[in-house]
Amino acid sequence: MSADSLSGEDKLIARFFGPIATDPGALGLTDDAAFIKPPAGCEMVLKTDAIVGGIHFFPEDPASAVAQKALRVNLSDLAAKGARPLGFLVSLALPEDIGDDWLSGFASGLREDAATYKCPLFGGDTVRSPGPIMVSVATFGSVPEGRMVRRSTAKPGDHVFVTGSIGDAVLGLGLRQGASWSLGDKHREHLLSRYLLPRPRNALAQAVLDYASASMDVSDGLAGDLAKLARVSKVAADIEVARVPLSDAASAVIAQDASRLAPALSGGDDYEILCTVPPANIDRFRVAAMAAKTAVTDIGVIAEGEGARFRNADGSALAFAHMSFSHF
Amino acid sequence: MSADSLSGEDKLIARFFGPIATDPGALGLTDDAAFIKPPAGCEMVLKTDAIVGGIHFFPEDPASAVAQKALRVNLSDLAAKGARPLGFLVSLALPEDIGDDWLSGFASGLREDAATYKCPLFGGDTVRSPGPIMVSVATFGSVPEGRMVRRSTAKPGDHVFVTGSIGDAVLGLGLRQGASWSLGDKHREHLLSRYLLPRPRNALAQAVLDYASASMDVSDGLAGDLAKLARVSKVAADIEVARVPLSDAASAVIAQDASRLAPALSGGDDYEILCTVPPANIDRFRVAAMAAKTAVTDIGVIAEGEGARFRNADGSALAFAHMSFSHF
Repeated sequence: MSADSLSGEDKLIARFFGPIATDPGALGLTDDAAFIKPPAGCEMVLKTDAIVGGIHFFPEDPASAVAQKALRVNLSDLAAKGARPLGFLVSLALPEDIGDDWLSGFASGLREDAATYKCPLFGGDTVRSPGPIMVSVATFGSVPEGRMVRRSTAKPGDHVFVTGSIGDAVLGLGLRQGASWSLGDKHREHLLSRYLLPRPRNALAQAVLDYASASMDVSDGLAGDLAKLARVSKVAADIEVARVPLSDAASAVIAQDASRLAPALSGGDDYEILCTVPPANIDRFRVAAMAAKTAVTDIGVIAEGEGARFRNADGSALAFAHMSFSHF
Repeated sequence: MSADSLSGEDKLIARFFGPIATDPGALGLTDDAAFIKPPAGCEMVLKTDAIVGGIHFFPEDPASAVAQKALRVNLSDLAAKGARPLGFLVSLALPEDIGDDWLSGFASGLREDAATYKCPLFGGDTVRSPGPIMVSVATFGSVPEGRMVRRSTAKPGDHVFVTGSIGDAVLGLGLRQGASWSLGDKHREHLLSRYLLPRPRNALAQAVLDYASASMDVSDGLAGDLAKLARVSKVAADIEVARVPLSDAASAVIAQDASRLAPALSGGDDYEILCTVPPANIDRFRVAAMAAKTAVTDIGVIAEGEGARFRNADGSALAFAHMSFSHF
């Protein structure tokens, strides 16, 4: 067959996605499937997460940002599990009015992140849909055999750490939805960019693997995600609200309206790492985090009991309307 | 936290999907990710395919059949690559009006197939969507290292085989769309069931691995898929139309309307295996197929040149309006 016999979908793959499939096992996306082997002594970590237009992003967001958000929400889970990215599959549902410009932007976003995170494309599927844009990514990473860092292994006495800052993304979403806080351009842009584009903490994965007792990523809100970790670990978590790291921009919002504090601590889309570190590992964890140029903050401790408790400076408990984001 | 603190999504996972996650590496879907290691000496084969309501299935199809179609279109690729299923991830977008009854049916279909095909669930994501139901599955299988059977390795002189029968599913779709062929109930039900539920040929995977020179699954239509195989293998394929296996039901339709032959040979959703077998392997391939209780039919040969040619008994070429199905 000549090149003309290529179907529209094959042409689309060859043009936009083939260049991102840089691993030999991806066969340049010219086959039905790809192959991969984890490094010697390692096993594979598997994760899938999807994002939908109008739910997880705004339809008018740049196509490159949509691609990067879809990949990064998955990379964030690999980081939290102490895994190194190996590659990903992407499944894309596109409305009829999505054309080459959008696809080109989408592919360029993916290509950039595949290179940045050393996570090449291994395959995908592109279908038309009468609904909104949906991007489902499945990622796979590697960890030394038996060492994936779990949620369920926190122990009383461990300290609770989070990376970066909490609450920016949900405040950024608030701005997108019309919140009228008085903020300088820099603060406004910070919050908006944190909603638009997660910054997964893959640089910290090795430190998590080496020093954390339990770990997960913060995607549905710190309060609810910590409650999940505490529940499956069969422990309690005592958090000092004042120690939860907030960006200057988030602090500026909360200074204007204290009622935004609880939503910031229970809103979604942070994509930070929440992990517990045994006391004996804390110094080395901090040194490794510094070497990885990733801010980590000690926000509380694990105790016997159950529940995630957020205490104000006066000892009272912070009340949450919702512990976390849930679709159901 | 007490059980009451489980979010709606966590409850949904625990109730419907946890029981399908039978591999220890899936951690009962209580963690952010899962882990897996391919068997010694093997590598992993990766594939993702999505189906969308109103495009790949009818919104009123039973939920269990939707689940099974989504999984089976992926299992079909593993079979064609000579791979044994290891597990899958599923990403599910659901409209607001989808409730527990539908989810219960969906999960029961998945559970049944996970057991039948020895392909347990390793993780998933469930999101609300303003669009139609979309199910994206990522499957992973295992093959001995370096031995995934490719599309690009057919050689002149190899014989072309297909499993089962061709064209049933697209004729079944025709019935769903109101075609008024005169058919007995049994023929009608056969065609409808072949559209509703693929029957991937995973039983033949070992024979493909052992004896085929090249292989792919027939998902977008025999004519177009064979053309793809020929193109990437840089060979021609000469097919005798009269040897393409048709079910009694498909033959009954074509006997009434000869113009349905070409669409049957180029329509989608067959989920049969198309493979090439060197002459020296043919006898052993046939014996292995018989042991696997899978019908295989020799429909032509690979030659020098390019293109997939379908010849009628009189030597003329069968003309196709479209070589295969494409969304783009």
